[in-house]
Amino acid sequence: MNKKLITKLKQVDQEKKIKDNFQFILFGGTGDLAHNKIMPAFYNMLKKDILPETFTIIATGRRYDSQREYLAEIKKSLSSNIKLDKRIWQLLAANIEYFELNFKDEADFLALKKILKQKSAGKTIHNRLFYLATAPGFFAEIAENLKKFNLLNLGFEDRDSKLVIEKPFGSDLDSAQQLNKSLSNIFSEKNIFRIDHYLGKEMIQNIMVIRLSNPIFRALWNKDYIDNIQIYLNESEGVKNRGKYYDDTGVVKDMIQNHMLQILSLITMEEPDDLSSQEISRKKVEVFKELAEINLDNFDDHIVRAQYTGSKKDGQEIKSYREENSIPDNSMTSTFIALKLFLNNQRWQDVPIYIKSGKRLAKKEAAIAVEFNDDFHQSYLKEKGSESNLLLIKIQPEEGISLQFNTRKPGSINRIVPVQMEFCHSCEQLFNSPESYEVLIHDMIVGDKTLFTSWEEVYYSWKFIDKFMQKCEEENINLHHYPALSQGPKAADELLADDERQWWDKKLK
Amino acid sequence: MNKKLITKLKQVDQEKKIKDNFQFILFGGTGDLAHNKIMPAFYNMLKKDILPETFTIIATGRRYDSQREYLAEIKKSLSSNIKLDKRIWQLLAANIEYFELNFKDEADFLALKKILKQKSAGKTIHNRLFYLATAPGFFAEIAENLKKFNLLNLGFEDRDSKLVIEKPFGSDLDSAQQLNKSLSNIFSEKNIFRIDHYLGKEMIQNIMVIRLSNPIFRALWNKDYIDNIQIYLNESEGVKNRGKYYDDTGVVKDMIQNHMLQILSLITMEEPDDLSSQEISRKKVEVFKELAEINLDNFDDHIVRAQYTGSKKDGQEIKSYREENSIPDNSMTSTFIALKLFLNNQRWQDVPIYIKSGKRLAKKEAAIAVEFNDDFHQSYLKEKGSESNLLLIKIQPEEGISLQFNTRKPGSINRIVPVQMEFCHSCEQLFNSPESYEVLIHDMIVGDKTLFTSWEEVYYSWKFIDKFMQKCEEENINLHHYPALSQGPKAADELLADDERQWWDKKLK
Repeated sequence: MNKKLITKLKQVDQEKKIKDNFQFILFGGTGDLAHNKIMPAFYNMLKKDILPETFTIIATGRRYDSQREYLAEIKKSLSSNIKLDKRIWQLLAANIEYFELNFKDEADFLALKKILKQKSAGKTIHNRLFYLATAPGFFAEIAENLKKFNLLNLGFEDRDSKLVIEKPFGSDLDSAQQLNKSLSNIFSEKNIFRIDHYLGKEMIQNIMVIRLSNPIFRALWNKDYIDNIQIYLNESEGVKNRGKYYDDTGVVKDMIQNHMLQILSLITMEEPDDLSSQEISRKKVEVFKELAEINLDNFDDHIVRAQYTGSKKDGQEIKSYREENSIPDNSMTSTFIALKLFLNNQRWQDVPIYIKSGKRLAKKEAAIAVEFNDDFHQSYLKEKGSESNLLLIKIQPEEGISLQFNTRKPGSINRIVPVQMEFCHSCEQLFNSPESYEVLIHDMIVGDKTLFTSWEEVYYSWKFIDKFMQKCEEENINLHHYPALSQGPKAADELLADDERQWWDKKLK
Repeated sequence: MNKKLITKLKQVDQEKKIKDNFQFILFGGTGDLAHNKIMPAFYNMLKKDILPETFTIIATGRRYDSQREYLAEIKKSLSSNIKLDKRIWQLLAANIEYFELNFKDEADFLALKKILKQKSAGKTIHNRLFYLATAPGFFAEIAENLKKFNLLNLGFEDRDSKLVIEKPFGSDLDSAQQLNKSLSNIFSEKNIFRIDHYLGKEMIQNIMVIRLSNPIFRALWNKDYIDNIQIYLNESEGVKNRGKYYDDTGVVKDMIQNHMLQILSLITMEEPDDLSSQEISRKKVEVFKELAEINLDNFDDHIVRAQYTGSKKDGQEIKSYREENSIPDNSMTSTFIALKLFLNNQRWQDVPIYIKSGKRLAKKEAAIAVEFNDDFHQSYLKEKGSESNLLLIKIQPEEGISLQFNTRKPGSINRIVPVQMEFCHSCEQLFNSPESYEVLIHDMIVGDKTLFTSWEEVYYSWKFIDKFMQKCEEENINLHHYPALSQGPKAADELLADDERQWWDKKLK
């Protein structure tokens, strides 16, 4: 890297500094998310000095008895991941207030209100965020209680407090609409922050930059030059202790409706007129609307769903999905899905977009592969060993970008070999990406909605998903199987083989 | 790199094996070229087992007294560069015959003829090559003597022996034509191998592959997407012991007329219909014909010529050009030149092609930089830190290819930073490039002319060069200066600065 660039990257980035104070009220403050994501994010933001001089985190929950116990537990969690800087921790702890609260108890809400009042006394509070890190079943009820017990008008216009919720946003279009109706009666859309934590990942944020700030990619970004797009999001873990939730949900609602369709929309959307969150969201919504309906009569040509079976690895038995905790013996929930999708628009007509995601696969790996057309000069046809040009955007675990191109095999007589040019973001110390939650918490405080899912996006993505989900889940057709920790079901490979293509995650092994 | 590819690359490459025997008669067999390039090439070819079972190298010269002395000297030279494998050396030595010869002596030619006859007795000789590694002044005379004393029809049709000559091919269009007339009276064009050793370099051979076997580059290879092309060939050495030759020649004739115009033609030529050497040569010749005449009234807008002055480095005095051995005190020879060229054709109309080459520059480095247009999305203009997309083909010392693109600065609010994806050919053990002379000697034996300069190429490149050389060298106008081991004259930077551009070798530092 050149010196100028290094200097530039080393400059402490103060552009993200939050100037105004805020109150951050965390429901589910004793849960996993609070312990593993939210508190570490605040710790890191403090360390980077991007938090304002005054702020308050009120963590509500029922698991711990006292402020002291709560802080001790949070400290323990932090310490297990980070080498804790005592000074930073003390600063954070001084701004955390633990408050025992029952979601249904009027008295508790009134007590919480009193605390907010005390904390606000004598100053203007610029931002108040209610972050519901709870089971989704409580979202509407908590929101309604906040309204009912007048926690939303303490120094604020009624609808100006912010609400933050985690996915899932409903379990189908109907329930999503119902939830949205409840919330939007209380909060304005601009103040509802729906977290899809994938959008906080560095390389997902990078998709638009790669597309728009590089003339060469911009020029090539359509059906004339691109043969197909693949998005894969492979997980190696099983359902762990989330068996009940997962068996009700399945891979489509857990991964496709949100993360995968979001990635798909960023990679295929028309160029936004500007970078405002509203404009970007409009362009994403267009993609959801233009997704071609899957022909359910030819189900197998478009969808492969599967569930993992038991296997052995290094002499150890690996449980099948049905043997996992809280999973019924006869569960027909899919833990893997592969889809072949099309977009009905000028830019992408007839370009297949293959997406797949699954649990308990051989390797944790997420990437977007953009494969270019084989428009080789006649003298360099595939027979000579050339391969498609491929742009690979690596999302995790490695973050980076690579471009596969053909080069001469040195010393040969015009033999061609495919090789990769690489830039590894996560390998560059200067490119240290912040955790998703750091990014997202920053953005919700300053009110930037770009990395959050708008209601319209939720609506149209559910609308698309609903069309095939009913058949998928209720009729239980065509449930394939794959051994735990394998590369997934064969049928998913055949989906592409029928088109004379291959999944790039397998091809690049 | 993936496993399949590694296996493929590891396969011993027997496609280059030369099946038929040959006689290789080397004039100037005691010179530097023989010692440092030709003999090492034969050694390496033997080691790789691509030479046929029988072959003869007859090295002629006058410096050594005996076969024994000659072999001892060659062995010494080889040993200084290579860890010699005794078995391979013995095999090579057994096939070398040293023969004392005076270019002007009839008796010597007749004696040489006798040796050729003896060596040919009882078998068909498939290939006979006369390689003139001598001063160019002797080319015509040696060729004529070969004809006159009947060395060209020993078992061969008269014009079927091969002639190999090294640059320079004349010192201007007239002298080149004169030389060619002499040679083409004796040898057919298809058997005259004019060596431009740059064409043997791996990355130069790779230019066509990169252009033609990669649909993404193919699509972008014209004025619509490319802003400018730069070719630089910086040398750090001075004129060493070639002062007399160099002062007569200068950088234009030494580097531009041959190497640089060859590279330029490969990077800009129209796509050939096939990969035959004739077709490729045709397309290269088109480029030379379409080079826009330099307007000599605005000399300074197109040409910067310069000579190096003395300097100091690490306390040591570095000689100026005029202080070098055999250089006149008042020499006005240019040791550096930068040119701004255009091609009058559809593909490259108005795309400047900047080329520069010089001696005694800070760093030895040759590369081609293809800079793409700044067609950024409006939201990512240059102000935000984005840079042009740039394809860099590195020729030496490192061989490789890199692509500069813009990426998000992690953790920033839409900040863009330019970074490079890299593939380093010379870093990959499996990509070990053969030396130019290995490639060239192989190709001349098997009769592949792709990497040799055709007469038409020589003709049209001289025709272009002649147009400005006379003014350049004879009127001695505008000779700039630069300190030895510096980055060259400021005027060369201004040549691009006037167009609001910069040389990429400097920018990438």
